[in-house]
Amino acid sequence: MSRTVTVMSGVMRPLVEDRLPDWVEPHFFLSREEAVALAPQAEIGWFDMNDRQGMAAAMTAATQLKWLHSTYSGLDGMPLETLRARGTIVTNGAGINAITIAEYVVMGMLIIAKGYRDVVRAQGRHEWLTRSPGKAELFESKALLLGYGAIGKRIEERLKGFAVDVTVVRRTPGPGTLTPDQWRARLGDFDWVILAVPATAETDGMIGAAELAAMKPSATLINIARGTLVDQDALVAALRERRIASAFLDVTTPEPLPADHPLWSLDNAHLTMHLSGRAQDTMFVRSAERFLENLDRWHKDEAVQPQIDLTRGY
Amino acid sequence: MSRTVTVMSGVMRPLVEDRLPDWVEPHFFLSREEAVALAPQAEIGWFDMNDRQGMAAAMTAATQLKWLHSTYSGLDGMPLETLRARGTIVTNGAGINAITIAEYVVMGMLIIAKGYRDVVRAQGRHEWLTRSPGKAELFESKALLLGYGAIGKRIEERLKGFAVDVTVVRRTPGPGTLTPDQWRARLGDFDWVILAVPATAETDGMIGAAELAAMKPSATLINIARGTLVDQDALVAALRERRIASAFLDVTTPEPLPADHPLWSLDNAHLTMHLSGRAQDTMFVRSAERFLENLDRWHKDEAVQPQIDLTRGY
Repeated sequence: MSRTVTVMSGVMRPLVEDRLPDWVEPHFFLSREEAVALAPQAEIGWFDMNDRQGMAAAMTAATQLKWLHSTYSGLDGMPLETLRARGTIVTNGAGINAITIAEYVVMGMLIIAKGYRDVVRAQGRHEWLTRSPGKAELFESKALLLGYGAIGKRIEERLKGFAVDVTVVRRTPGPGTLTPDQWRARLGDFDWVILAVPATAETDGMIGAAELAAMKPSATLINIARGTLVDQDALVAALRERRIASAFLDVTTPEPLPADHPLWSLDNAHLTMHLSGRAQDTMFVRSAERFLENLDRWHKDEAVQPQIDLTRGY
Repeated sequence: MSRTVTVMSGVMRPLVEDRLPDWVEPHFFLSREEAVALAPQAEIGWFDMNDRQGMAAAMTAATQLKWLHSTYSGLDGMPLETLRARGTIVTNGAGINAITIAEYVVMGMLIIAKGYRDVVRAQGRHEWLTRSPGKAELFESKALLLGYGAIGKRIEERLKGFAVDVTVVRRTPGPGTLTPDQWRARLGDFDWVILAVPATAETDGMIGAAELAAMKPSATLINIARGTLVDQDALVAALRERRIASAFLDVTTPEPLPADHPLWSLDNAHLTMHLSGRAQDTMFVRSAERFLENLDRWHKDEAVQPQIDLTRGY
């Protein structure tokens, strides 16, 4: 039986090597150069690298690739059009970090509600505060949740335990739901606006000056998706003039944010440096499990999952 | 019909005046002197003042008092023995802050899991972190919850949304429950040990050197009840030697904690200065609701609630 050439990042080797089925012919790369050199023979590829350009180069070179797997959820910057033209199936990490990211969002809401950052600073000064720097409760506050994928669903689950009134934006109308053409007119109803949508042409710049102006002055914007969803200059102006109360930004444009960017110093901007999905040590384990399960499906001619739609990009 | 003389703090006037029933003859005081002067005629009294001695003086002067209401939970320093001898019924603010405190506990767990305090400090330095300072998830972690009153129940509700495995200590055995004589032997099973019990002779010093030694080195102690529940010197030693991972302490001994106390500087001690219950602006509104509901019960000869046991003091 001829084996299937499968090219994988060496980082995953300890998690998968002993569990690969016999029909797999494994090749592991440790550098961009090795990845690009191995790619043309690959039928199955897992080209994840911190070097996103190297990752794209390996994908472009993988002319025989039938199935591409990635631990990442966001594949922006990858040659998705080329993959689509070749008929390559792509599975990604959608949902892998969803639990961690959802926990991070709730943390952000709580630390803003309680003014916790000022409590940290007071401890640094050995100062016993007698008034809470924040006096809001999540209880019965209203959240608009844009994006109802794996992350959004897990955010909703957690916020329900706090009796937060969560309104979800989705195409299917229903109770507690706004459709994509309805939410803008309702922005002034919410204490929290949470961005958990994929980065696509449709979502690019979805929060601009007009949307910020429509929010309550007491409201908080939370972005754990992509910096490009927000007109960042408009956001800086809105925060500076306190037209919205605060922003909790796991993502910015660009990343890393330059050290002299005004967001760093605004006392109502909370920056968490794209750490939300990294605040776990289970991502590689969960991704390896997903890959191994998919190998089994692949061999049985079943559909690997979750497959991304290469036209939509997520 | 003769009306019932009801003496109330003027602070509450805007929240209750328009909603008092006809059978109430309302009197509002604005000073200690006015409170003490009005007290002897009062059948119902709500003598809350920032001036705790004035509050006690008004209670002592209220010789005809049948029912005393207070927004506060802790009535230490009040003439409880005199009230008991007179047969006065006392309702207090137990549970009024429970939601706020429960939210604070979950915040504490999340900020420790994600190492959020170091993220705050990094923003202060304008430094883009590339690794999360904390990589734990609440998801499927194990919590021991000591105290199953209004606060404990609300903590449990919220943690269930995170799929935390919560074990409760209570006298009634049941699934997910340990009895008061069982929990010590099981301390090593938990990632979180949460203290939400009242301060009594029985709970005084309940966490000492032996209990700290029985906890996992990766575990966190959370105390939002009273500093006296914990042997604080033993806790400082355990934190310093990293025999437990961290402590989230809303309460300490004494309060305020002196500026040179070692807890301030330990990097695994998180101090929140008894702010957990203060991180809200709804306490007076909720207490007014409780008082108005109780007036209704009083008039129907039903039991007002929650009544405190003047012998136990809570």
